[in-house]
Amino acid sequence: MKAGISSLANSKNLNLHHFSFAVSRSTIFHPKSFSRRTSFLSPIPTKTQSNFGLSRKNQIHTPNFSSIMASSYKPEQARSPPALPLPTPPISKARFFCSFKIGLCQLSVTADKERNIAHARKAIEEAAGKGAQLVLLPEIWNSPYSNDSFPVYAEDIDAGGDASPSTAMLSEVSRLLKITIVGGSIPERSGNQLYNTCCVFGTDGKLKAKHRKIHLFDIDIPGKITFIESKTLTAGQSPTIVDTDVGRIGIGICYDIRFQELAMIYAARGAHLLCYPGAFNMTTGPLHWELLQRARAADNQLYVATCSPARDAGAGYVAWGHSTLVGPFGEVLATTEHEEAIIIAEIDYSLVELRRTNLPLQKQRRGDLYQLVDVQRLNSQ
Amino acid sequence: MKAGISSLANSKNLNLHHFSFAVSRSTIFHPKSFSRRTSFLSPIPTKTQSNFGLSRKNQIHTPNFSSIMASSYKPEQARSPPALPLPTPPISKARFFCSFKIGLCQLSVTADKERNIAHARKAIEEAAGKGAQLVLLPEIWNSPYSNDSFPVYAEDIDAGGDASPSTAMLSEVSRLLKITIVGGSIPERSGNQLYNTCCVFGTDGKLKAKHRKIHLFDIDIPGKITFIESKTLTAGQSPTIVDTDVGRIGIGICYDIRFQELAMIYAARGAHLLCYPGAFNMTTGPLHWELLQRARAADNQLYVATCSPARDAGAGYVAWGHSTLVGPFGEVLATTEHEEAIIIAEIDYSLVELRRTNLPLQKQRRGDLYQLVDVQRLNSQ
Repeated sequence: MKAGISSLANSKNLNLHHFSFAVSRSTIFHPKSFSRRTSFLSPIPTKTQSNFGLSRKNQIHTPNFSSIMASSYKPEQARSPPALPLPTPPISKARFFCSFKIGLCQLSVTADKERNIAHARKAIEEAAGKGAQLVLLPEIWNSPYSNDSFPVYAEDIDAGGDASPSTAMLSEVSRLLKITIVGGSIPERSGNQLYNTCCVFGTDGKLKAKHRKIHLFDIDIPGKITFIESKTLTAGQSPTIVDTDVGRIGIGICYDIRFQELAMIYAARGAHLLCYPGAFNMTTGPLHWELLQRARAADNQLYVATCSPARDAGAGYVAWGHSTLVGPFGEVLATTEHEEAIIIAEIDYSLVELRRTNLPLQKQRRGDLYQLVDVQRLNSQ
Repeated sequence: MKAGISSLANSKNLNLHHFSFAVSRSTIFHPKSFSRRTSFLSPIPTKTQSNFGLSRKNQIHTPNFSSIMASSYKPEQARSPPALPLPTPPISKARFFCSFKIGLCQLSVTADKERNIAHARKAIEEAAGKGAQLVLLPEIWNSPYSNDSFPVYAEDIDAGGDASPSTAMLSEVSRLLKITIVGGSIPERSGNQLYNTCCVFGTDGKLKAKHRKIHLFDIDIPGKITFIESKTLTAGQSPTIVDTDVGRIGIGICYDIRFQELAMIYAARGAHLLCYPGAFNMTTGPLHWELLQRARAADNQLYVATCSPARDAGAGYVAWGHSTLVGPFGEVLATTEHEEAIIIAEIDYSLVELRRTNLPLQKQRRGDLYQLVDVQRLNSQ
């Protein structure tokens, strides 16, 4: 496997001291867990509660926008419920700074499921060996990407064990290596239905979250690409955001990235990072893959990581590749071409706060003119 | 003036016949004018009412997504009120096809207001001479861009005549040349307040709409760019979308483009084209100028046109330039560097429908999970 590692990440190493606030338990981020104080019309704090990673220099130079800007624009109402402050990720407390390494495993995928599982395991081990504390796999990494294959390769994730050898491997390797894994996606069988599903495993090997692709890939560009995923798959029913040792992560799968509302919801729920396993193709890849990642990152001022299968020109569905990490200014921090590769790159959450101080979009939104409603979060209150 | 014209636009020339539906009157698009049938929970048509420009080939190849996709996801509820269908622009009826030329006048701006007005007039005439039926000017084209200059150069647009020589010129030249002008922006004085204001003039020379910048440019990137527009200016109170002879146009000024919600609202109100006069700078320009334009176009599947002042390296605020036209797939159709230039490029609204057929995002949104509320439109119903 090509281990051509491309890391353009800023290696800023901030020596911060202890944080004074409690670290939230690392659990699935369920709507019910939101504090009651974030009810519909209540104000949110004008400053985020944490200041991890913001250097003194930046703090001193910051003008007091809030004293200048009129409060009548109701920025807190631009999200319903109001946006939550960024939480402090456990990694910040454990290591006294906010940076860590992510590994994006752009895997070749074959028709041999056993080989795919062993191959993914080897790549995860290699990434962890290079320091990755978070590993991201591609969309549909244990099966060819086709409506014919999904039923054949699907696993019963909830049954676990022999019924789901792919996730059993992910659980074991995350526990042994003490890393967080956003396990790309595999076809999932649940009762009579099939889903395109991403499993997130914590450092203890436990399944922390399961995201079923919300927006199915039904597109038709005549002569270029036509695919109707909904012929075989059922769409998921919930956004998925999860507190891990390496931050609060919002999950989307491939076509989910086209729906800016999902990323906006995750940002309002306090995500540091969005992970999109995805297999864009030779038409939509060059047109939109990088554009959409950069847009989600810049608009929401957070990190975006994507992971594609490596390209197999002989496959029925040819993936674009180009797995990428984008920073909270929309800047490409690390990327690759279409061959197999493991990208190791640094994520520094202090940059999320820095960019939100540079461009205080959260305080400048016009809640008097528009409002994005997170339906499930609102209903859970 | 450099007339280096860059037009990469697809010159598809569709020979369509008469349209059977009425052409709406060309008036300011006021919320009150929306039909009552677009109330909160009513379904929107599953197909847009018009089919201008869609070739038979594309219609035949289109799979019937609606029969495949579950209706329980309530895509119509992803916008409140539900999104309106694309209107048919008058130009389609008058010319039997949907394409026309836009001119983007990337003007040099000096401290001499009279010169700036005469210079802009000359550029508009040149663009019209090259066939432009719609001309877009830069942000703050009659004044240097600075908080010190805004009060000095501001005009009372509502008083008109001698009180607003800049808009008087735009009115006269649009009437004489029978073109639509999206007049960039100028500092506006209204009572005791100053605004950053864009005026839109119709082919009859009448003021059709006035957009006051909604999101003021208050940013602080230490050592790079700090600007607090709200020190002198007041923010506008409404989105502005206007029916013109060349389509339904949503207006934003510069920093407005950072707020994806505004573009989403305009798309839901049936915009064909978003025009953003803007003066990004040497820091945010290379980072975000093209990214934001392409993202707004691709996410909302419509045209985006921007117009910047030409760069003056000696000015207090140095503009990035790079005025651009982006198509509904997020593709850059025409652009330029930072010198003075007039870009002439073709806009073909049939591509808006084509892209929405290729990727039917409007029918795939998850109104059961998220909803963007257009507050003023909802309140007007």
